[in-house]
Amino acid sequence: MRFFNEHVEDIKIAYIGGGSRGWARGFMSDLAKEPALSGTVSLYDIDENAAYDNEIIGNKIMSQAKVMTDWKFKTITSLQETLTGAHFVIISILPGTLYEMESDVHAPEKYEIYQSVGDTVGPGGAIRAARTIPMYVTIANTIKEYSPSAWVISYTNPMSICVRTLYRIFPAIKAFGCCHEVFGTQALLQKMIKDRYDIKVQDRNDIKINVLGINHFTWIDRASYKNTDLLPVYREFCQKYKEEGFISEETVHATYNPELGANKVKFDLFLRYGLIAAAGDRHLAEFCPGKWYLDDKDPYPVWKFARTPVSKRMDSYQKQLADTKSYVLGEREFKIAETGEEGVRQIKALAGLGSFITNVNLPNTGQMPDMPLGVIVETNALFQADSVTPVHAGKLPVPVQSLVMRHIYNQETLVEAAIKKDCELAFTAFINDPLVTLSLSDADRLYKEMLQNTSKYLWR
Amino acid sequence: MRFFNEHVEDIKIAYIGGGSRGWARGFMSDLAKEPALSGTVSLYDIDENAAYDNEIIGNKIMSQAKVMTDWKFKTITSLQETLTGAHFVIISILPGTLYEMESDVHAPEKYEIYQSVGDTVGPGGAIRAARTIPMYVTIANTIKEYSPSAWVISYTNPMSICVRTLYRIFPAIKAFGCCHEVFGTQALLQKMIKDRYDIKVQDRNDIKINVLGINHFTWIDRASYKNTDLLPVYREFCQKYKEEGFISEETVHATYNPELGANKVKFDLFLRYGLIAAAGDRHLAEFCPGKWYLDDKDPYPVWKFARTPVSKRMDSYQKQLADTKSYVLGEREFKIAETGEEGVRQIKALAGLGSFITNVNLPNTGQMPDMPLGVIVETNALFQADSVTPVHAGKLPVPVQSLVMRHIYNQETLVEAAIKKDCELAFTAFINDPLVTLSLSDADRLYKEMLQNTSKYLWR
Amino acid sequence: MRFFNEHVEDIKIAYIGGGSRGWARGFMSDLAKEPALSGTVSLYDIDENAAYDNEIIGNKIMSQAKVMTDWKFKTITSLQETLTGAHFVIISILPGTLYEMESDVHAPEKYEIYQSVGDTVGPGGAIRAARTIPMYVTIANTIKEYSPSAWVISYTNPMSICVRTLYRIFPAIKAFGCCHEVFGTQALLQKMIKDRYDIKVQDRNDIKINVLGINHFTWIDRASYKNTDLLPVYREFCQKYKEEGFISEETVHATYNPELGANKVKFDLFLRYGLIAAAGDRHLAEFCPGKWYLDDKDPYPVWKFARTPVSKRMDSYQKQLADTKSYVLGEREFKIAETGEEGVRQIKALAGLGSFITNVNLPNTGQMPDMPLGVIVETNALFQADSVTPVHAGKLPVPVQSLVMRHIYNQETLVEAAIKKDCELAFTAFINDPLVTLSLSDADRLYKEMLQNTSKYLWR
Amino acid sequence: MRFFNEHVEDIKIAYIGGGSRGWARGFMSDLAKEPALSGTVSLYDIDENAAYDNEIIGNKIMSQAKVMTDWKFKTITSLQETLTGAHFVIISILPGTLYEMESDVHAPEKYEIYQSVGDTVGPGGAIRAARTIPMYVTIANTIKEYSPSAWVISYTNPMSICVRTLYRIFPAIKAFGCCHEVFGTQALLQKMIKDRYDIKVQDRNDIKINVLGINHFTWIDRASYKNTDLLPVYREFCQKYKEEGFISEETVHATYNPELGANKVKFDLFLRYGLIAAAGDRHLAEFCPGKWYLDDKDPYPVWKFARTPVSKRMDSYQKQLADTKSYVLGEREFKIAETGEEGVRQIKALAGLGSFITNVNLPNTGQMPDMPLGVIVETNALFQADSVTPVHAGKLPVPVQSLVMRHIYNQETLVEAAIKKDCELAFTAFINDPLVTLSLSDADRLYKEMLQNTSKYLWR
Repeated sequence: MRFFNEHVEDIKIAYIGGGSRGWARGFMSDLAKEPALSGTVSLYDIDENAAYDNEIIGNKIMSQAKVMTDWKFKTITSLQETLTGAHFVIISILPGTLYEMESDVHAPEKYEIYQSVGDTVGPGGAIRAARTIPMYVTIANTIKEYSPSAWVISYTNPMSICVRTLYRIFPAIKAFGCCHEVFGTQALLQKMIKDRYDIKVQDRNDIKINVLGINHFTWIDRASYKNTDLLPVYREFCQKYKEEGFISEETVHATYNPELGANKVKFDLFLRYGLIAAAGDRHLAEFCPGKWYLDDKDPYPVWKFARTPVSKRMDSYQKQLADTKSYVLGEREFKIAETGEEGVRQIKALAGLGSFITNVNLPNTGQMPDMPLGVIVETNALFQADSVTPVHAGKLPVPVQSLVMRHIYNQETLVEAAIKKDCELAFTAFINDPLVTLSLSDADRLYKEMLQNTSKYLWR
Repeated sequence: MRFFNEHVEDIKIAYIGGGSRGWARGFMSDLAKEPALSGTVSLYDIDENAAYDNEIIGNKIMSQAKVMTDWKFKTITSLQETLTGAHFVIISILPGTLYEMESDVHAPEKYEIYQSVGDTVGPGGAIRAARTIPMYVTIANTIKEYSPSAWVISYTNPMSICVRTLYRIFPAIKAFGCCHEVFGTQALLQKMIKDRYDIKVQDRNDIKINVLGINHFTWIDRASYKNTDLLPVYREFCQKYKEEGFISEETVHATYNPELGANKVKFDLFLRYGLIAAAGDRHLAEFCPGKWYLDDKDPYPVWKFARTPVSKRMDSYQKQLADTKSYVLGEREFKIAETGEEGVRQIKALAGLGSFITNVNLPNTGQMPDMPLGVIVETNALFQADSVTPVHAGKLPVPVQSLVMRHIYNQETLVEAAIKKDCELAFTAFINDPLVTLSLSDADRLYKEMLQNTSKYLWR
Repeated sequence: MRFFNEHVEDIKIAYIGGGSRGWARGFMSDLAKEPALSGTVSLYDIDENAAYDNEIIGNKIMSQAKVMTDWKFKTITSLQETLTGAHFVIISILPGTLYEMESDVHAPEKYEIYQSVGDTVGPGGAIRAARTIPMYVTIANTIKEYSPSAWVISYTNPMSICVRTLYRIFPAIKAFGCCHEVFGTQALLQKMIKDRYDIKVQDRNDIKINVLGINHFTWIDRASYKNTDLLPVYREFCQKYKEEGFISEETVHATYNPELGANKVKFDLFLRYGLIAAAGDRHLAEFCPGKWYLDDKDPYPVWKFARTPVSKRMDSYQKQLADTKSYVLGEREFKIAETGEEGVRQIKALAGLGSFITNVNLPNTGQMPDMPLGVIVETNALFQADSVTPVHAGKLPVPVQSLVMRHIYNQETLVEAAIKKDCELAFTAFINDPLVTLSLSDADRLYKEMLQNTSKYLWR
Repeated sequence: MRFFNEHVEDIKIAYIGGGSRGWARGFMSDLAKEPALSGTVSLYDIDENAAYDNEIIGNKIMSQAKVMTDWKFKTITSLQETLTGAHFVIISILPGTLYEMESDVHAPEKYEIYQSVGDTVGPGGAIRAARTIPMYVTIANTIKEYSPSAWVISYTNPMSICVRTLYRIFPAIKAFGCCHEVFGTQALLQKMIKDRYDIKVQDRNDIKINVLGINHFTWIDRASYKNTDLLPVYREFCQKYKEEGFISEETVHATYNPELGANKVKFDLFLRYGLIAAAGDRHLAEFCPGKWYLDDKDPYPVWKFARTPVSKRMDSYQKQLADTKSYVLGEREFKIAETGEEGVRQIKALAGLGSFITNVNLPNTGQMPDMPLGVIVETNALFQADSVTPVHAGKLPVPVQSLVMRHIYNQETLVEAAIKKDCELAFTAFINDPLVTLSLSDADRLYKEMLQNTSKYLWR
């Protein structure tokens, strides 16, 4: 890695899950738009063909006329070799396939447990954790041996559990987890300002926020735009839209995706707890007791958000396959567009080009003083040359702390159980999940069925 | 208070709730059996006649031939005067009447929420807390002014919330909360030893235990008899009786009270979590998610414990009234018998006569290092002259910690809400209770109804 | 305070110590250079005439042709009135006079205790604390009553003790303490880069640092310029200059002030502890055991820094008086120049104009997780609209932690003692100071003499 | 180990340092007086002949007519074999010889540093630590492999550092450190009661105390006899004897050993800090700044305690050699007498025979909430079957906390340095010791000389 004249060259990035059709291509796109960085991206994937496809697509992107930088993409079939010499490691894997995910999300329905996403918490999140943790154990051990000083950016869900596993296995790792849900909440605040004051805030980064909590159940307890305290404004906004919900003009059109929701869960939570819940309603709903927002198979009539069935993911997967083919064959040109993700911006700062503050998932070293040390929390952090330093986030109000801690305890238990290969211990987390409002015997039955459905990926 | 020749004389005890027909008379009985202590007990009660009755009964007890000590009982109608000059304060009050308790326990049944006791947690516990905290605020303020250096022993439920209120209002108070549920678990271990080894352990204090958790949801993570580690023995015991339950021979007769249960909840919890839950099954069940042990109106068929309806308490109350009359009129002599409670033994140690270790409820100053400071925890403590020092209890396993912390957060919220007179804040604790598995709108309806039923005693 | 078109108008600033000839005028100068802010500064000083002089000087400054903003300066003779309605409060007072300071610095010399500044720690710092704390108690109480939501910037030494007192008296205060010593260390790193790479770093803010410790005994454990880790560079720099010291070319000329030193103490500390001590050598020396760097009346021959005698301050004071007169009379025009202080920049961010990170003194809420909560630590913090949020600073290595904690314990004791008016308690801090290497009887004699010399300003 | 009828048989004890002439024989003597225990003691010593001598002496003791129990003593020449199968491990070793100790104690005198014992803190303690830690590393590793579930009782100085090393190397070890200094302070309180009330307290255990701090610098903040609070009595006692000191009648005779002192240091510390310092004056003096109590080569004229020269230890050693010979040859019979040590009593409780409370050295798990976790603190603990549970000790007042923490930081540094074999790191502890009031260059010279004198035993 060479720093030269405000450029950084010869950066080596290892991309684990390099066959990814969504995240990996977005990342390539963001790289293509950043003239200050260049180097090599090694693509590793258990689906080698998918990685090869991305190698072709990535190299084609870099040869597009308007691209002012140069990255080489190369498929590597050994994890060890992929990691060796890496300055940065990206992890965005799908743990198992959509068939396992189908069980995660839909198997609990026969017990009237309805999940809106099913990849973070709830029975689906617990089972997904059970198959993801062993993969992350392997990755962490390999990083420890082959690229111990690399910066590791993790995108996989369940986020907190993945990052926790990395640190459990290799405590000196320099890793953090990234997610865009909070950015979406900043965007909502932009729209609120438009709604209230008819002012267009250009950049979501102009909305200053204090972030605290855990991934997908993150909270904002201070927000300002210039000198305006946004919390009183948000209270009015909640009051105004608590019944009908709020869907911004841009998104209200034909293309409106009901999974994005109308923020009614967020408004309800604010009016109860006084803090802005900073994730999409689909995610937030899953962290709360099942009767609150996910009591019905279709929560839309009451709460105005739709669940995401796995069949929809499967359709989208088929479409991606077709797209891939046409990109690879050169039938279509990949369209470079900003994703809104921050991975490239973070790499830039870590490489010594500038500094900025954003929210990421890190072990608690005191930034949330009421949380146990070591658990993964999401707060603001300062990115600078070779360092990510949490900003002190403070404390959640006790009622919110309780809702959050319940999931942290479950995450700790799931990681411990997977490392110890202890199914009974993991079951104590399963029955402690707020969506699992079952008798012990029903819970036991469901747990065993779901484990069976994912058994191919479980610890052995 | 004079210490003389291994006796302590002129002890002044203030008894708040001095009209109590159960606890107060047990206490008198224990005093009568302890030759080393003597003095005066001031009886204060909002039901003055009840206090007068106890004054007569207490003084009659002391005049029984076999009593080798001397205590004077005297009704005092002002709380201030009762407390002035007291060396010890006992608080055992009934917050409200059995009519309020009827609502606490039975109002939630229309939403299929079944409580077995309804005085500690659950919707009933929350509402009982709401009317008890203001009474304890008054008591704490009066102690602060009139007997700041007295030792205060609290017996009222919800225990943790009462003791927490005392310390919130008067942080320098010397108070602790006492409960016999753990003693009952020691007794179960005695019976287990009989069952397994056919050895009769004379004294429950010979069963050495480490106690940690919160009142009525207390845990034992180490137990020994002589050099025998009792945890493996208990595991076998649980396996043996997990289906049928265990009812000891003494209690199996006609007089068997199904409310005492057959320990099936305790066995189930041990087999899941590896720790001995140290309270009666009726209490334990209420701290767990509602579907686990209280899913049915009658839990007996599955879990072999019965719920205690308030009608039964009302019957018992009528009987106590009749007994009282006959004691007062001298138609019957009150029978002095050891209660198994430790109040008098504690007073003796605090007065400088010996030292011993027992479990009590105290603010956490580090005895449970994973718990927030200040919350009320139940652990062993060393009683000596003018001091109660917690024994370091250690940490709960994470899955148990999660179950316990949920209640601690609720307790913190309920105390804060009652002090701030904030009904909406208290509602966040209400809906976070594991028995309240309702939609937000149903929870709201139930809460308002229950608050209405107890409105006479609420903060204003 | 009105926010309008990237300007903030009608700001009300209360300046306590408004007669100050150094800090107050620097502040006026910085205000004059900032076009985005305008408003009123109320000047309060126990020396009313000094405040009147500054009122005249300040208003004259604002009328200079090149000044593009507008501030009114006004003397107010009541502290209450000064504070009422203030958005910002500046405190820069001289506790007592230079006569008291003469005793602080020079009285200990008869016991061979040599202080280089004598205003922070050492026997002089302890006595200065004793007379400053009561003044800060008064100020804190008045702020609590008259401007509880104002932001308070404190410049007075002993810094940590002053800020601690503000929070002890009024825990909800929004106060922080500012000091430029760390900026000077950033400047040294700029010069180091020039010396090593012949690169001129334009802005000290381009040197990114992590700051931790306490005021005047602050440390840097991470430093970078672009992608260069500066710690290995600093190690070489220390090795190169550890004997002769390093004095930069700009400062080496005739005007060189030997009090600024040649960084030999800093180099010695780095080579022992591996961290950059981030204050002038004169300050650092006083925090270490007396035999290390202040064993001789003149430390220059060995350590290449000079002590600052109070006589020098008196001379400078006379010159300031003369300058003041000529400014007031309009004989000379006050020269507006950037001071390098950050007060105005901080006010700007707090008012909602931008955000930035700098080092300030704040109560520890977890930013230094090994330090007791509540004590004043100096770390980076994020300044934004109406908020100052510490950046997580981490832990000092144990040997440095020990040196620092000794002073923190003394600070805690001095504040406690002054509030309790307990001279004997304050004496335990006095004898625990690393410069006080005396027998108990000598220490007692010196302490009493020094207290006597400052008795006019002591608590009563 | 068999528990039978209130006896425990077949106990296996491994005694490391089994050739010890003082501690080992005292232990044998205590074993001989305890009828409830019997078994085997394996004696291991690098001086094998010394172990053989003790084997003979120990077996002779057990054959004395009045001894009602049976222990076999056997020399084992391999540490591994000694530990294999042990239920209890005793460690009482002399790290190095008296020649190394001569350097520890007397080498610093040329720099006017006078130590009274020189085995715990001060320059001597630091160097002794440097040669002891590697030995304890070896012992800890061997225990980890050969007797991981044994209880380990450590008597070696520097106590805190030895116990800390055991836990650093083998965190699951069941070890504690024992010392009789606090017992001596209880005895002083017995004498105080005699002096004040003319009452003879039979048993020092009737003096109830709360113990907190570190070994040899331990403090008592609560003390009672029956219902009498002893702290006000102790204050009067200090006032009465602060000038002349207090030497009890029993000890005042010809045999009076001036090293035991007259408690003037203890009285002075109480009058400054309000807590009872609970160790002999010789020890306490070494923990305080050098100028306080050890400014003179002979502290007796002012402070009435004498230093212990190593020559005296050498004389005593010669006498022990002669005694040994006569015991071994059977010329004299070893006189069985209670030592006042508690090792045998502790073994009895750990084996399941009864329970009691005493003060021991353990890692801080929260019993001293203001201390860092993991450091070794001395507090009360509850001894029961297979468990030692600290009693919550609470906090030291800040000024005492500062004096104590300085040593804890040094201990942490010395252990870290020895494990890392880092002489420069250990030097930072050396110069931070309160007795080392030297310039950095003198300190460096002394350190190197002392290290050289002990080089045979240093880490390599």
